[in-house]
Amino acid sequence: MDCLYFDNNATTPLLPQVRDAIWPYFAEHFGNPASLHQPGRRARTAIETARAQVAALIGAEPEEIIFTAGGTESDNFALLGSLETLRPQGRHLITTSVEHLAVLDSCRYHERHGGSVSYLPVDASGQIDLAELEAAIRPDTVLISVMWANNETGVLFPIDAVAAVARRHGIRFHSDAVQALGKVPIDVRRTPVDLLSLSGHKIGAPKGIGALFVRRGTAICPYLHGGHQEGGLRAGTHHVAGIVGMGTACDWIRPRLCQENERQRALLRQLEDGIRAAVPEVVRNGDPHSCLPNTLNLSFPQIEGEGLLLGLDLVGIAASSGSACTSGSAGASHVLSAMGVPGARLHSSVRLSLGYQTSEAEVAALLQRLPAVVGRLQSLSLPADVDLSLFDCPVIECLLADHD
Amino acid sequence: MDCLYFDNNATTPLLPQVRDAIWPYFAEHFGNPASLHQPGRRARTAIETARAQVAALIGAEPEEIIFTAGGTESDNFALLGSLETLRPQGRHLITTSVEHLAVLDSCRYHERHGGSVSYLPVDASGQIDLAELEAAIRPDTVLISVMWANNETGVLFPIDAVAAVARRHGIRFHSDAVQALGKVPIDVRRTPVDLLSLSGHKIGAPKGIGALFVRRGTAICPYLHGGHQEGGLRAGTHHVAGIVGMGTACDWIRPRLCQENERQRALLRQLEDGIRAAVPEVVRNGDPHSCLPNTLNLSFPQIEGEGLLLGLDLVGIAASSGSACTSGSAGASHVLSAMGVPGARLHSSVRLSLGYQTSEAEVAALLQRLPAVVGRLQSLSLPADVDLSLFDCPVIECLLADHD
Ligand SMILES: Cc1ncc(COP(=O)(O)O)c(C=O)c1O
Ligand SMILES: Cc1ncc(COP(=O)(O)O)c(C=O)c1O
Repeated sequence: MDCLYFDNNATTPLLPQVRDAIWPYFAEHFGNPASLHQPGRRARTAIETARAQVAALIGAEPEEIIFTAGGTESDNFALLGSLETLRPQGRHLITTSVEHLAVLDSCRYHERHGGSVSYLPVDASGQIDLAELEAAIRPDTVLISVMWANNETGVLFPIDAVAAVARRHGIRFHSDAVQALGKVPIDVRRTPVDLLSLSGHKIGAPKGIGALFVRRGTAICPYLHGGHQEGGLRAGTHHVAGIVGMGTACDWIRPRLCQENERQRALLRQLEDGIRAAVPEVVRNGDPHSCLPNTLNLSFPQIEGEGLLLGLDLVGIAASSGSACTSGSAGASHVLSAMGVPGARLHSSVRLSLGYQTSEAEVAALLQRLPAVVGRLQSLSLPADVDLSLFDCPVIECLLADHD
Repeated sequence: MDCLYFDNNATTPLLPQVRDAIWPYFAEHFGNPASLHQPGRRARTAIETARAQVAALIGAEPEEIIFTAGGTESDNFALLGSLETLRPQGRHLITTSVEHLAVLDSCRYHERHGGSVSYLPVDASGQIDLAELEAAIRPDTVLISVMWANNETGVLFPIDAVAAVARRHGIRFHSDAVQALGKVPIDVRRTPVDLLSLSGHKIGAPKGIGALFVRRGTAICPYLHGGHQEGGLRAGTHHVAGIVGMGTACDWIRPRLCQENERQRALLRQLEDGIRAAVPEVVRNGDPHSCLPNTLNLSFPQIEGEGLLLGLDLVGIAASSGSACTSGSAGASHVLSAMGVPGARLHSSVRLSLGYQTSEAEVAALLQRLPAVVGRLQSLSLPADVDLSLFDCPVIECLLADHD
């Protein structure tokens, strides 16, 4: 059975254009861009082209783009690099309780090392309150980090307003835009954000490549120490093919962003309507009025989310659970928990996320297959202790799940 | 003109087997290994196969291999992760003055944060003295980091002896084995090293992938914070294709290592003899009796190294300079400087490094082309201020050079 891939927030297939573009950099153009000779210069030129392409998608200057190994490194770099630079001014950081773990764990690291962090709560729709942001600001606040869009629910945060608050207080502002890039317009000329985390594999580029936008004039300590790559801000031999792929993906998306946004939004509506028609008791998690065009987080009452995922997997549908693991509340989604989603709904959530390649036919096929799976599970009222070994999923792997 | 690539210590072309192996992971098998569904499980299986392949090449257990984004991250992780874990026991680290910048800059970071570092000197042949290592040990020494082989000269360090000293004193031992992997046998069952940095792109695998061997029982703090990947030790979505490529390269090399070692050693002798015959005044830098089989670092008296590189590039030979930049002594090779190589020789050095793909015909072709270039430069006695703009090399790029 062909796989219906509805997990594009976890990772995306390569765009065909990206596939074509990267191959030469695995073949004849294998030089190290730090080398002076012809193969090196060739690689260096490719990197600079890609840098301009990534910059163009977000309205930045090429020099403001620093290539990293992915969104996780970009988040660590943005937060810990900034906090080190700004240490003389203070050690307090404000973020939200629904950030990606790459941000939250960097915050915990900062706390373990004597820094302090305020975690803004979210309401039932997954939104933050700007008044609470203002209230959290202290004299020693040096950084605000609020994600552009949430990976589990797709909720879009009021980034322009947050940036304005930060600017007014003279506080540096970072946003994790990993899930927003390529899905909604981002323009750093309009939005006064200082640092922006980006990742390649969420936009049709390879895994293991990301970038950090660092606005001109924003001082930041390097996080990876060593060679003088990336103007001394990020050491390590460039992942040339990944960089070329990320540039190509950005270049492909730029003229298509609005149209893709609308196309996916329409498909998502179709998907949601179709599911509601078949399973009327379904509940959508997260503010539907401020949401990525591609993300649908649903709770199916009386069904255990992992069981549903397993059932969907068996009929060739790749989706993802809002909660990382069934084994104990420790595994429940920190995002849905922060939204105050009650226990049953918390453990019955599934995320469906579309991509550039998702077709209407695939949505129709999903709508054909899904209701039967839901129906079977409802009639069985599958117990919470569904046999995960069927799933080839020992606890350790389960814990690994869905950290996308 | 076809390019004669003699810069394999900077980076290597992909092994054909690696090229074939990685492609499916850019195409149909694009899943995120953190996902529970079939595409995710497929990627997870591929990673575990690769982990076993990397482990096998160095005699480790698969669980002792942590995938990173490259040698630079592995070095940062090994040093700074260890120093954080061991902080209660002490903050003194011993290393050598000829390490790669990924180690040296991590050391400087440690110093800036109140730690202390002893840098062992090297003698004229680039070797360290074990008595000086012993003498440098203090009660608060918690880590020794000595590279397995030097990237500029190819000098092999007495790793077994260093490991024995570390073991006797109960001090953790890290070795940067980025240049040694795949060139000389490494067996962690025989050598009691605790941490070993590895990189993919030096052994015919893609750029942007590396690994850290962490001996079982060695506690280390993660360096990239976030998801639970790699047993919680290294967050970030796996670079699946890179991992598959690194595993495949290790698997290809393992049964061929000894034979390749001898083949390249013989080619290198041919290369050295041929150059000596044409340019008798050439001087080899680094201990020729304890050296990688593929690395030849030569000084051509009266010739400026960058000029020679330029000349070689113009006749289609890709080589590398021992020194990073001609513009002032700041740019001189820290390795050759530490060896006490005098000024003129210091700035006239060129590194030639072979790879698995290097053929006898290529060596012969190089020997045909090189003497004329050397002769021309000697007759011109090219001034130290050779016009680097010809080279498309502003100072900033020059500074980037040869940090491999
Ligand atoms: C919001 C968000 N931030 C950061 C990351 C981490 O990016 P990467 O997978 O490239 O490390 C992800 C996805 O994994 C994400 O969804
Ligand atoms: C000895 C040594 N260590 C570390 C590195 C860094 O590895 P990577 O290029 O994978 O970051 C290199 C090469 O660049 C090296 O030669």
